[in-house]
Amino acid sequence: MLTEIITIGDELLIGQVVDTNSAWIAQRLNDIGIKVKQISSVSDDVEHILKALDEAAMRADIILITGGLGPTKDDITKKALCKYFNTGLKFDEPSFKIIESIFQSRGRQVTPINRLQAEVPENCMVLHNLLGTAPGMWFEKDKKIYISLPGVPTEMKGLMEKIVLPKIKERFPLVPIVHKTILTQGIGESFLANLISDWEDSLPSNFKLAYLPAAGMVRLRLTAIGDNEKKLRNEVEEKARELNNYIGEYIYGFENDKLEVLIGRLLREQKKTICTAESCTGGFIAHKITSVPGSSEYYIGTMVAYSNEIKIHELNVDIDTIENQGAVSEDVVLAMAANAKKKFKTDYSIACSGIAGPDGGTDTKPVGTVWIAVSSNNKTITRKLQLGNNRDRVILETAQHALNILRKMLIGEL
Amino acid sequence: MLTEIITIGDELLIGQVVDTNSAWIAQRLNDIGIKVKQISSVSDDVEHILKALDEAAMRADIILITGGLGPTKDDITKKALCKYFNTGLKFDEPSFKIIESIFQSRGRQVTPINRLQAEVPENCMVLHNLLGTAPGMWFEKDKKIYISLPGVPTEMKGLMEKIVLPKIKERFPLVPIVHKTILTQGIGESFLANLISDWEDSLPSNFKLAYLPAAGMVRLRLTAIGDNEKKLRNEVEEKARELNNYIGEYIYGFENDKLEVLIGRLLREQKKTICTAESCTGGFIAHKITSVPGSSEYYIGTMVAYSNEIKIHELNVDIDTIENQGAVSEDVVLAMAANAKKKFKTDYSIACSGIAGPDGGTDTKPVGTVWIAVSSNNKTITRKLQLGNNRDRVILETAQHALNILRKMLIGEL
Repeated sequence: MLTEIITIGDELLIGQVVDTNSAWIAQRLNDIGIKVKQISSVSDDVEHILKALDEAAMRADIILITGGLGPTKDDITKKALCKYFNTGLKFDEPSFKIIESIFQSRGRQVTPINRLQAEVPENCMVLHNLLGTAPGMWFEKDKKIYISLPGVPTEMKGLMEKIVLPKIKERFPLVPIVHKTILTQGIGESFLANLISDWEDSLPSNFKLAYLPAAGMVRLRLTAIGDNEKKLRNEVEEKARELNNYIGEYIYGFENDKLEVLIGRLLREQKKTICTAESCTGGFIAHKITSVPGSSEYYIGTMVAYSNEIKIHELNVDIDTIENQGAVSEDVVLAMAANAKKKFKTDYSIACSGIAGPDGGTDTKPVGTVWIAVSSNNKTITRKLQLGNNRDRVILETAQHALNILRKMLIGEL
Repeated sequence: MLTEIITIGDELLIGQVVDTNSAWIAQRLNDIGIKVKQISSVSDDVEHILKALDEAAMRADIILITGGLGPTKDDITKKALCKYFNTGLKFDEPSFKIIESIFQSRGRQVTPINRLQAEVPENCMVLHNLLGTAPGMWFEKDKKIYISLPGVPTEMKGLMEKIVLPKIKERFPLVPIVHKTILTQGIGESFLANLISDWEDSLPSNFKLAYLPAAGMVRLRLTAIGDNEKKLRNEVEEKARELNNYIGEYIYGFENDKLEVLIGRLLREQKKTICTAESCTGGFIAHKITSVPGSSEYYIGTMVAYSNEIKIHELNVDIDTIENQGAVSEDVVLAMAANAKKKFKTDYSIACSGIAGPDGGTDTKPVGTVWIAVSSNNKTITRKLQLGNNRDRVILETAQHALNILRKMLIGEL
């Protein structure tokens, strides 16, 4: 069962709007075992829409269209659909009632333009949209299904959840499809691929693996298609478990897990608190931790010590240590972590010092050299990293590394 | 001159990744007067890619492809391109040198898998990618141009800006089109539209205005098309200048200006230093300031005081002030700003305290209530804001507001 998504609107083609609808639709369709074959964004132009419909119908069984249903002149999806299905418009009374009630709730009278929104192609089944003035439409032709939905995300999602997805499930016996996303930190895509190449070769032919590198992590997405969903789910879980033997130390979570959320949950469960002492990350670790709602329960504070003077005066780092070993050194982050923990009276602390670049590198300490220390009440873990010469990436990867060390300490892996 | 964008990757079709590349590319092409006809996302499947290339070539003159150039088995764009252009792969020494230097900067050896990334189709012109391991490629066939770029946004953008856009401009005589983007902070889209409606009505018919709301700002993009670029440029500048009479106090910059870069430049010119004392922003202001290369020249440090105890002990905020007026109050941010400036011995300081939510709001201080103070050696400006109940937005808009107050103080506007 294949679907194609066609999004209609000039705003997409001049880059004014990022198409977030398609990813959402694709995810929800995948959840019920329907593959999306292609996503196309086309302009508010009748001929172009007709061509896109023709091409999509050659490849897919369900064609899902969003956008171009607004009240203004440039929205011409309905006109294109009438032409495609060789039909005219009819006035849909229930749709008009909804439009009226929406206008009433805003204390306004329906305009003639909005009255036109209640007109729909004669041969469609109307999908009543309670969240907006543009009704959705369901067509069938030559065993293909065509669904037209408004482009406003809340309206599109409402119609999908309430009408379209249930109706598709009811109509088609679907092939089960199971996804699992494994999140890794601290290793690049190619190194990961090397470590798991035997495992990858061992995947059955109904399995597919995708590498998705993102900021400070690589996600592995395992997809399996088969007959029996329960059996498939077990097989996917089993294969994912096997990964622990190859890259266990790099796996920190699954699906949409975030390190800052994971450590937040652990700190809260263990009733522990945390502070940070940051140099090269300039407050970014604190920002990540505090981006989580409720973080004030376990996060106390941070000292960002960019200058050596502040490291010395506010974090009691020994001046001789800085002079002898440099601000980017193991002893400096050890002192920062220890003294921040005292200053903020927390159970854990994270400290880091590094050269984010583009300047400041030396032969022995090139740009991208970073020292991290994470302290608890009875131990401290330090790490030296070489993170390359992209400033944003150095900051981001340092934060991911540090949070992952903390996570491992909290679960007893370090 | 028409372009089509083809984005390749299963991650797009299962909705795991939102395609933000296409909107960015479309915007930049529009800037130089090139229209995008269609955007298509297709799977990591050779036959499907070939079909998409065929269809695009029937409609457009330039076919721009992103994605599918990673080192792993699921990335097959190069294989598809070889088949499409009926050619084989060759080893590109300069690309390999770049790959080597990227690995060296990370202290690692090139793997055999990454060595393969230096292989490119024989008939292409290689677009050397200094930001990553996958080179871009430029092909020409039957008077059409095909450009293949990596899917990682920073790498794609780097190649577009440095090589692809200049090369396209050089090759094609384009209709003059002039853009100017005016950046505003501190006012919403609809209020802005109200203030400038007369000005908007006065725009000549060859002018177009777009509102582009983004994180903590609204951008106004003015576009003009005509015959004479120099004349057009003058007309656009004149119209943009007129905006000062309507919304001058909200305009902080143009094009890609960033507040953290603007204040960095001003601080450096004036040889002044800055620190921050943050509560609700949790280090985000420090992060913004330190995201700018060279910020260590003027940025000294930050105290993130999430708990009241730290506000009292580390920033000398009076315990009675907190008890009587609450941690989110003018007197508390005044004390934080003054004491941070002393602690870090700087010329300027930024302090903020607020309720980022989702919890913690009260009737008199709902979620989104924020106090900001910005101090210099002879004055302090405070502001109270109501920023709504989206945690990420509260943090971001607080930072934008604070940096803009500092900017206005540095240029003598406040």
